Amino acid sequence: METRLQELRARLQEIDDLNSAAAVLGWDQSTYMPPGGAAARARQLATLSRLAHMKSTDPELGRLLAELMPYAEQLPYEHPDAALIRVAQRNYERMTRLPTDLVSEIAAHTAASYHAWTQARPANDFATMLPYLERTLELSRRRSFLPLSSRNRGLMPYLERTLELSRRVADCFPGYEHPADPLIDFSDYGMRASVIRDLFARLRAGLTPIIRAIVAQPPIDDSCLRQYYPRNDQLAFGEQIIRRFGYDFERGRQDLTHHPFATKFSVGDVRITTRINEHDLGDGLFSTLHESGHAMYEQGIEPAFEATPLCNGVSAGVHESQSRLWENLIGRSRPFWEHFYPELQQTFPQQLGNVPLDTFYRAINRVQPSLIRTDADEVTYNLHVMIRFDLELALLEGTLKLRDLPDAWNARYAEDLGVTVPDYRDGVLQDVHWFGGLIGGAFQGYTLGNILSAQFLAAARAAHPAIDDEIGRGEFATLHGWLRENIYRHGSVFTPTELIERAAGGPMQIEPYLTYLRTKYSAIYGIDLSS
Amino acid sequence: METRLQELRARLQEIDDLNSAAAVLGWDQSTYMPPGGAAARARQLATLSRLAHMKSTDPELGRLLAELMPYAEQLPYEHPDAALIRVAQRNYERMTRLPTDLVSEIAAHTAASYHAWTQARPANDFATMLPYLERTLELSRRRSFLPLSSRNRGLMPYLERTLELSRRVADCFPGYEHPADPLIDFSDYGMRASVIRDLFARLRAGLTPIIRAIVAQPPIDDSCLRQYYPRNDQLAFGEQIIRRFGYDFERGRQDLTHHPFATKFSVGDVRITTRINEHDLGDGLFSTLHESGHAMYEQGIEPAFEATPLCNGVSAGVHESQSRLWENLIGRSRPFWEHFYPELQQTFPQQLGNVPLDTFYRAINRVQPSLIRTDADEVTYNLHVMIRFDLELALLEGTLKLRDLPDAWNARYAEDLGVTVPDYRDGVLQDVHWFGGLIGGAFQGYTLGNILSAQFLAAARAAHPAIDDEIGRGEFATLHGWLRENIYRHGSVFTPTELIERAAGGPMQIEPYLTYLRTKYSAIYGIDLSS
Repeated sequence: METRLQELRARLQEIDDLNSAAAVLGWDQSTYMPPGGAAARARQLATLSRLAHMKSTDPELGRLLAELMPYAEQLPYEHPDAALIRVAQRNYERMTRLPTDLVSEIAAHTAASYHAWTQARPANDFATMLPYLERTLELSRRRSFLPLSSRNRGLMPYLERTLELSRRVADCFPGYEHPADPLIDFSDYGMRASVIRDLFARLRAGLTPIIRAIVAQPPIDDSCLRQYYPRNDQLAFGEQIIRRFGYDFERGRQDLTHHPFATKFSVGDVRITTRINEHDLGDGLFSTLHESGHAMYEQGIEPAFEATPLCNGVSAGVHESQSRLWENLIGRSRPFWEHFYPELQQTFPQQLGNVPLDTFYRAINRVQPSLIRTDADEVTYNLHVMIRFDLELALLEGTLKLRDLPDAWNARYAEDLGVTVPDYRDGVLQDVHWFGGLIGGAFQGYTLGNILSAQFLAAARAAHPAIDDEIGRGEFATLHGWLRENIYRHGSVFTPTELIERAAGGPMQIEPYLTYLRTKYSAIYGIDLSS
Repeated sequence: METRLQELRARLQEIDDLNSAAAVLGWDQSTYMPPGGAAARARQLATLSRLAHMKSTDPELGRLLAELMPYAEQLPYEHPDAALIRVAQRNYERMTRLPTDLVSEIAAHTAASYHAWTQARPANDFATMLPYLERTLELSRRRSFLPLSSRNRGLMPYLERTLELSRRVADCFPGYEHPADPLIDFSDYGMRASVIRDLFARLRAGLTPIIRAIVAQPPIDDSCLRQYYPRNDQLAFGEQIIRRFGYDFERGRQDLTHHPFATKFSVGDVRITTRINEHDLGDGLFSTLHESGHAMYEQGIEPAFEATPLCNGVSAGVHESQSRLWENLIGRSRPFWEHFYPELQQTFPQQLGNVPLDTFYRAINRVQPSLIRTDADEVTYNLHVMIRFDLELALLEGTLKLRDLPDAWNARYAEDLGVTVPDYRDGVLQDVHWFGGLIGGAFQGYTLGNILSAQFLAAARAAHPAIDDEIGRGEFATLHGWLRENIYRHGSVFTPTELIERAAGGPMQIEPYLTYLRTKYSAIYGIDLSS
């Protein structure tokens, strides 16, 4: 049995090495790669993805797992070997549903699509991309262009193909209740569209009166954030904060990109990226805090799980609970800034020397319905997510056509957030997800994460009431320790549902999150938001 | 036949994709990777290397090549298909000699060894590396440590293993005249130790009187170079020079590292690295010019060769001819600086505003026997190479033991260059090659490149006498065009010998190089060096 386990580990390690190599190539593509490298990089990523998929679906791996299953079943549920065999078996079953060619097509398509998006979004005018697209995207050549205006005809073929590939992925898992379910299952294992729809409906019912009450108040002046803040000072300040959080720079680093992300090449190399706006202090700083939460989760996984499928955060929702917890529940909290604001003032004396803490604290927590998800405050943020979630479902159902997507997007933004979308750039093109992945399962995790972040922090506080005092002293060891002990170290040993029950002491529920928002924003806006 | 050719291309592309992915991981390892990533990176590189080797030695590839051989033989020698099949067959024969396990061991070992070297060299004290080494280098665990002083016992096991692996590689090619021959053949196809020994002996006979005459002169004052030159200004100046040379930043970029190198991920993504010493202007600038020569060679290869074995520079010697040509024959020439020195003075007015061109020109061409190969002037540089070449041969022969290597190194530096080696850091540990590759075949290319650089430039001048005037105007299009036409674009279509004969109009010979040195340094030192 030990020999078979070793063979399993060797096979899983090889798969992990290929996936990690692809992660390095993807990181480079998003940070440093010159434009001329794009076509070959898409091909290289497709090759790595195809080889990883071939090895993930090798019938020999299936036979090995079948032989090991009886051994796993006699072990305690939490035993690392049992968890390894269980999770590897689950992945094997899932991966064998997807044809290797489809996986390879998706990899090549998403790399090319991502690159096109990075070029096209800043320009807001995709017609100029056409010669490039026609030259490099072999897949697109086979498709006729849609009868769209010249202003967005460049990216539309990519989206068409993304939707087609997404549907083909869903159809590899027949028997679904909703075509989004298999795609949601990839990112939030065990979740379904119907469950999320219900959860989101209840959350929306709780959020709407909060937002309505806040919007009725005079808007907060956040002009103190919109001064000139030099890039390097911003980077240094953010990095010293996340070092205090417990992000380990010996096992990671931060670089600049278009659309920030965290990525892992090994448990000893978990990197984050950010972007800096020299005229908006919040943009880069809170992006850094956000990505550090994702990265600390991955850095905190039990090192013995390295190079196995256990060495991954368990779901998009739980992952996002960590980024949102560190970014918002800690990084936008009053006790946090009571400690760090003097340091920020020292870093930017001309900009903030005469700005009182209260003004700054209110500025970074200003609630204002807006256009851009990643710039949104933590209350209206969820409305951005719900719009995308609903549109994804409609696209997959076929009740919404892609050519009508921009109009549908704009209509929902007018209706839900009361804002007018001026262009594609700050509208339907703002997020990388549909241009660097699939349509379906891409967004629900953000709001699941918000919900969970409040549950987890409440559980940590219940176990360690001193946490709030420590945050006020700029210390995070107890909180980080609780998260590592109860969430991070487990990697994918438990299912998301199991992990949430163990860490939060019960199933996912929206009340702690709504209570958190009501308490915080009652104080900030001086109103009574208690329901 | 077209189907078989397509299959050949697909197989070669897959191998190239794996090798290119490994190149990206290697670049990252040398530029941005945090220390915690080292162990996993070594494993990932080993996996990519093993998979590439398995695919390079797949018997199906051998059968395919055998089927295509008759087709290739009926084509003209220079036909791209003929060249592709010929070079792929040559590589296949070579690769099938090397067991996959050995290739994988070498990859893992060199990655770990390289990382250890980057840590150990600055410290000059390797004992502190020991806990790390013991933890990460599984291969080393099986070996007992040599009875060495605590000051260098950290890296010695790596070197022992490197030499062992190098001998095992040589032994995969029985029938060699010298054990270095198979290793030399990898980097300079068609060359042998005996031929190089003879060539180097004749070159040494020509160099010795030149160096003796120069050293008898009063030393040139190069203190103007050793002022404070801020890093970013140095980088920007070097980059604008190589942009003028014709290095394409749309298809490349420059980053910082310990030991500069050029690397290619595709014909559209050829990167260089440099290092900056803020107290020595020459260090970073000439490194940048040097690596740009390597990179322009790779950027200039016929794009249709992409992802095949034809899409590589043909040999270490020809490659080095390009780095040395752009660095020295152009970048340290009088006409070049007559144009660029005013720009350099504008960049560094405080440092160079009052320094005459002649003082600067003499400073960058100061001949002074010294410790460090990469800092050496272009005359004594060849002595550094010959020392390493001779030591490599002796180590492989077994006439020199590794434990005696530092003493042998120091003795040769005293004898050949008249300098005393003060420590390991600036002695036997100064070059990455033995710590990031094999022993044997690593150094001869540098001096072969010096020899060839003068031959190629003479041929280009003969074809286009206006080249010198253009250089004096800061224009390089004619020279770059001649090099691209006669060398770069061909990739590996011809053998090194064939390419040299075609481009230089005859076989490799040392006279143009000696003539170049005699003419240049007679003028600089005001002496008669004509032999």
